[in-house]
Amino acid sequence: MTTATAEPEITAAEHATRLAAVRHRMAEAGLDALLVSDPANLYYLTGYNAWSFYVPQLLLVPAAGEVVFYARAMDAGGAHRICSLPPEQIVGYPENLVHRPDVHPFDWVAERLRDRLTISAGTTIGTESDAHFYSPRAHQALQAGLAPAALVDSRELVNWVRSVKSEAEVALMRRAAVVTAAAMRAAIEVIDVGVAQYEAAAEISRAQALGDGETWGDYPAITPMLPTGESADTPHLTWSERRFADGEAVVIELAGVHRRYHVPLARTIMLGTPAPEVARLVEPVAEGMETVLAGLRAGARVGDVGQSWNDVLARAGLSKPSRLGYSIGIGFPPDWGERTISIRPEDDTVLAGGMTLHVICGMWMEGYGYELSESVLVTEGGAQPFTNLPRGLLRPRRAA
Amino acid sequence: MTTATAEPEITAAEHATRLAAVRHRMAEAGLDALLVSDPANLYYLTGYNAWSFYVPQLLLVPAAGEVVFYARAMDAGGAHRICSLPPEQIVGYPENLVHRPDVHPFDWVAERLRDRLTISAGTTIGTESDAHFYSPRAHQALQAGLAPAALVDSRELVNWVRSVKSEAEVALMRRAAVVTAAAMRAAIEVIDVGVAQYEAAAEISRAQALGDGETWGDYPAITPMLPTGESADTPHLTWSERRFADGEAVVIELAGVHRRYHVPLARTIMLGTPAPEVARLVEPVAEGMETVLAGLRAGARVGDVGQSWNDVLARAGLSKPSRLGYSIGIGFPPDWGERTISIRPEDDTVLAGGMTLHVICGMWMEGYGYELSESVLVTEGGAQPFTNLPRGLLRPRRAA
Repeated sequence: MTTATAEPEITAAEHATRLAAVRHRMAEAGLDALLVSDPANLYYLTGYNAWSFYVPQLLLVPAAGEVVFYARAMDAGGAHRICSLPPEQIVGYPENLVHRPDVHPFDWVAERLRDRLTISAGTTIGTESDAHFYSPRAHQALQAGLAPAALVDSRELVNWVRSVKSEAEVALMRRAAVVTAAAMRAAIEVIDVGVAQYEAAAEISRAQALGDGETWGDYPAITPMLPTGESADTPHLTWSERRFADGEAVVIELAGVHRRYHVPLARTIMLGTPAPEVARLVEPVAEGMETVLAGLRAGARVGDVGQSWNDVLARAGLSKPSRLGYSIGIGFPPDWGERTISIRPEDDTVLAGGMTLHVICGMWMEGYGYELSESVLVTEGGAQPFTNLPRGLLRPRRAA
Repeated sequence: MTTATAEPEITAAEHATRLAAVRHRMAEAGLDALLVSDPANLYYLTGYNAWSFYVPQLLLVPAAGEVVFYARAMDAGGAHRICSLPPEQIVGYPENLVHRPDVHPFDWVAERLRDRLTISAGTTIGTESDAHFYSPRAHQALQAGLAPAALVDSRELVNWVRSVKSEAEVALMRRAAVVTAAAMRAAIEVIDVGVAQYEAAAEISRAQALGDGETWGDYPAITPMLPTGESADTPHLTWSERRFADGEAVVIELAGVHRRYHVPLARTIMLGTPAPEVARLVEPVAEGMETVLAGLRAGARVGDVGQSWNDVLARAGLSKPSRLGYSIGIGFPPDWGERTISIRPEDDTVLAGGMTLHVICGMWMEGYGYELSESVLVTEGGAQPFTNLPRGLLRPRRAA
């Protein structure tokens, strides 16, 4: 690979800073240990990155002392090559514990955790109780195996540490944005009347891996989504054999990814003449987007920015019940959001420079839809979009 | 799309048969209701198929009476268009419950469940306690909201119903196999010395959507995996910018997918001259595969087939600690396995005609690897592979 600038690196020092930030919050929350299972949090803290999250895995972060990663034996074997931990801090659980109704891998792991933790009735251990891939059976195994310690919800502790990006992370997201732009251009290139959704998905997926030929793309946490025509009011439909038809507004939502950092983007391509109900969305959404981008500056309250969007919509006689966006960064299937900040009136988060958000003005109306989004970096002066593709109703290539 | 034969359909009658089979098992297990959250089980029972499983969703299956699907309002709106349920059996929970640390969507859902269930201290409700995307917080919300009912683990009740495929399902898997073969051919076409992993992933991903030009591909539950060279002992690594080098054995594991039905396949491409430690794996693995395929017939015990593989390996002085395969069919990220049958000596399942398995002879040795797999249909006379690609060490295209 040849690139204009050196590949951004997450250094050992940055991993240490991250761990220290997590431990600072652990101390505030009164946690003696934290058990991390969200693959994005695992990657953030150790660099471990493999498609092994469909089986239980866990990172022990004690208040002090060695961090230890517990994974399936098959995955633990070579894990030291791809993460920041030495082999002696990676423990494999036996293969015959995978997918058993009677025993759980965390029965075994809990026994090992007891060797490393001093457990009494006063011990408080955080778990990621709402993370994907951390199941009630996993939780029950830890609860039984770590008794009498109290397991408490971490309330997305690591996710919140992730919400402010370092310079290296922003640089990785700028790489991802190059992939995003290439993938969206591929979408605009291929989508037209008579083309099947799967044909569009094929070219988009290819571009998501190839990037621009210099900056390569990692796999996305969510497949390209193409809600179209009547089904555009169901935003999370995936592709099918359906062919795009004249008069349809085709929504494209995709992410470019670089080393697990995601930059999502949505645009709408108009095939033929826009229906009046679609056309009338364009201007208020454009105005709302400008208002929000100006408002997303360090020091602002997220909820106020969410309210400013609702106000713009209301003046046009419109409303959007769902949130306007969320925090982004590292993503693993099934989500590229960080599950922390949500842009909506009730969110009290105060913005900080270095936060990164996906601002998604998705108008999912009954029987049609229009979507415009930007992934942005929060700065003192407002939000800086990561990409600069034209907004509004785009035209297919032959009409351009 | 033009296809030689009509697209297989899952009829309303087949959906009714599936529900009846689930209720039969519920009665055996003494369940008054079952709460289904696994997206593959949701799809199996209702046809609902969207990338909405990153937020909580739940299907209520009472012992008798109406099935009801609870999803995020945004997704519930158009869901009746894509599934077997009428709008009145689909309930959307409010958008402002998404990603909140203080309230959970299932607090709200539990209240609605109480309206539909007669709950007393003797009520027993099954939950999918080890399913992906069903979190401890979700479980706690239901437990509190449905008290004093007892929530018990369903032990993969629906997954086990799924293990035997209908004719229509086998027909869908044959479609998927067409996509599998096209994607593996694309891999063999592109992989060679000097090619980057992401370049190979780009062409494979494109082929996974395009299929053979007649049969299209749905998105795979797992991205293509390409463990190579030294890192081949870490089977679940995803692609990077690394370039394939002379002398490497490149393992490709991918699935073709059609309407969520998966047919996975693994092959190994040898770039240059095979190292002796790789070459010596080929013959015993081929013999083991033949032994296993002959043994996987209706009436056989899965564990005995697993043992027969171990015996072949042992004669060659080899061993494989991980299971030899698992049940396949409908798949959603992060897994295309059904979490039921595992081919290993301790599995007591008796095989039935119509079961479908991924037999994966993956030899993940320290510093190198060799993989050969077949997805198969179990019949009276043994296992029928869904694809017929050559086995052994394949050569890159220029050498063929």
